[in-house]
Amino acid sequence: MSSLEKTVSAILPPDPGREKSVRARLDSLTKPLGSLGRLEDLAARVAVMTGADKPSLARKAVIVMAADHGVAAEGVSAYPPEVTRQMVLNFLNGGAAINVLARHAGARVVVVDAGVSGEPLEHPALVSRRIGNGTSCITRGPAMTRAEAVKSVESGIAVLEEEAGKGLDAVCAGDMGIGNTTPSSVITAAFTGKPPEDVTGRGTGVDDEALAWKVSAVKRALETNRPDPADPLGVLASVGGFEIGGMAGVMLAAAARRIPVVVDGFISGAAALIAAGLVPLAKEYMFAGHCSTEPGHRAILAHLGLRPVLDLEMRLGEGTGAILALGVLEAAVKLMNEMATFGEAGVSEKGKK
Amino acid sequence: MSSLEKTVSAILPPDPGREKSVRARLDSLTKPLGSLGRLEDLAARVAVMTGADKPSLARKAVIVMAADHGVAAEGVSAYPPEVTRQMVLNFLNGGAAINVLARHAGARVVVVDAGVSGEPLEHPALVSRRIGNGTSCITRGPAMTRAEAVKSVESGIAVLEEEAGKGLDAVCAGDMGIGNTTPSSVITAAFTGKPPEDVTGRGTGVDDEALAWKVSAVKRALETNRPDPADPLGVLASVGGFEIGGMAGVMLAAAARRIPVVVDGFISGAAALIAAGLVPLAKEYMFAGHCSTEPGHRAILAHLGLRPVLDLEMRLGEGTGAILALGVLEAAVKLMNEMATFGEAGVSEKGKK
Repeated sequence: MSSLEKTVSAILPPDPGREKSVRARLDSLTKPLGSLGRLEDLAARVAVMTGADKPSLARKAVIVMAADHGVAAEGVSAYPPEVTRQMVLNFLNGGAAINVLARHAGARVVVVDAGVSGEPLEHPALVSRRIGNGTSCITRGPAMTRAEAVKSVESGIAVLEEEAGKGLDAVCAGDMGIGNTTPSSVITAAFTGKPPEDVTGRGTGVDDEALAWKVSAVKRALETNRPDPADPLGVLASVGGFEIGGMAGVMLAAAARRIPVVVDGFISGAAALIAAGLVPLAKEYMFAGHCSTEPGHRAILAHLGLRPVLDLEMRLGEGTGAILALGVLEAAVKLMNEMATFGEAGVSEKGKK
Repeated sequence: MSSLEKTVSAILPPDPGREKSVRARLDSLTKPLGSLGRLEDLAARVAVMTGADKPSLARKAVIVMAADHGVAAEGVSAYPPEVTRQMVLNFLNGGAAINVLARHAGARVVVVDAGVSGEPLEHPALVSRRIGNGTSCITRGPAMTRAEAVKSVESGIAVLEEEAGKGLDAVCAGDMGIGNTTPSSVITAAFTGKPPEDVTGRGTGVDDEALAWKVSAVKRALETNRPDPADPLGVLASVGGFEIGGMAGVMLAAAARRIPVVVDGFISGAAALIAAGLVPLAKEYMFAGHCSTEPGHRAILAHLGLRPVLDLEMRLGEGTGAILALGVLEAAVKLMNEMATFGEAGVSEKGKK
């Protein structure tokens, strides 16, 4: 059995019977019933998905998958393609937004070269899982071969397995790749059926003219490749990216190990579409960290049935929205674990005098 | 000069000229322009209000003001009045939601007896600032005397001053007081002019019948006391609470010292109405932590022109929404302080190849 097949078959539904006992515990805590709102729902989901009565989210990682995109040569981004490589070095040096937010949350950052253009980067902290030297341009043909698509998902599985071996309670899936909102728009259009205009945004900040050109690139990619949502690996191969496949692999492997995975924004969301397309049960282990300003992201969240924790108008990627939300998730779990019950604290309950 | 007069006169507008240099710094960081969304606005506000180029929010406190309310005897709450006292002990023992969230955020909890009914509580960690033995019932007359209203605000000023003396970069204003959504609804109606039905909610969770009774109590309190929003101390005296006055004092003293103050939910918001009524400039130093499910809270936020950081359907009070939001605020500030610039990281800027 391949590592992908093995992972897919290991993803099982959480035990729905646990919900009741978890809710009873939440209701016994010294607060008006339900007054912690969505924090109670978040904590309950973690308890149900992990199967732990007092789950810990202490050991956290953000896996940042980086890769380049042939379509970037079409001028769909406000930044030149070499920025992918430069930002990978910035991640490794601890100077990017994700480094700051991961330090704040007490999480480690795992930087993965999933297919950055040019000479392979070398750095002691870099995880090298290169599938290729950037993808081919999706407006003219497929991004990668089907074998490469499988390999990209399996590389994500391998990265998650390695991190799980070090101890991992929760994981965020982040991305870096100049041009990668374009394949994400194509993937979103393929899975949700929405028109390209509705799921294509300004990415790193293109102007009106470049946005129109980007929409045309999304349309051409759809026409050239005709991605079929019933074949998620085919979608990934034809219009995806190496980092998108890698993040999908991270999500599948996390689900197989019952590790909560926080999906970040639009690109991470496109990876979630691939993962959930392959194994719908994978959604049961996903949290939507935030709602991006990229218009396609709302379509993804609606399609997956995930409600974002935060809505702060972010659109940076890297896992930034996910790690910020994971801090809230950890707070929710600590409330469930650490608050005194009415009995323990000698506090009168509702209607009992 | 009284401590209130002194504090009021010390509240000055932040320097608007700083906004430009702060924004330039944010734009120099290695991320697409504006891609951190509201985090950039939050960080900029902290930098402008504190006057620091690299402000720190490391030293944090949640001040939880507790007091009882005569109106609780009218049956406006789902919980018996002795819960105020019991919860104060829970705070002091570290078992309440605010204790868990403060530990998560690295903040200290300052528990203040502002007027809890019964024998004065004694505990080494309790700050005793008792104005009275609970307020009088606001449906039948004023909650307190005008002198007590001034004293309650000044007690909050004194608590903030004491905390500032220990080192304080940011503060949250939280509450505990069975029955205190009722005076908060009256205060909200008085300042916003909204009808009682629109600003009265279920509080700790009353049923339909009790909600109708609570709306009638709000109406009777308005008719009996006719609070005048042009006289904020008069509003506090006639329909307020000792903890509400105390929180207003905390907010004013924080503004006078240019310390960012995070307003919590509905009760803390009612205190913000009093504080901003006394000194409109105080709003310049406030953040709205979250949006409560109490219907009156949206009216308060609109009136103050504050946009909440979080919207998690919380309605617990204690400062819980505020401290969770302060974690996000601290993350925003760290991004501003710690991220590498394009120049430092050797990353190509937009349109510059």
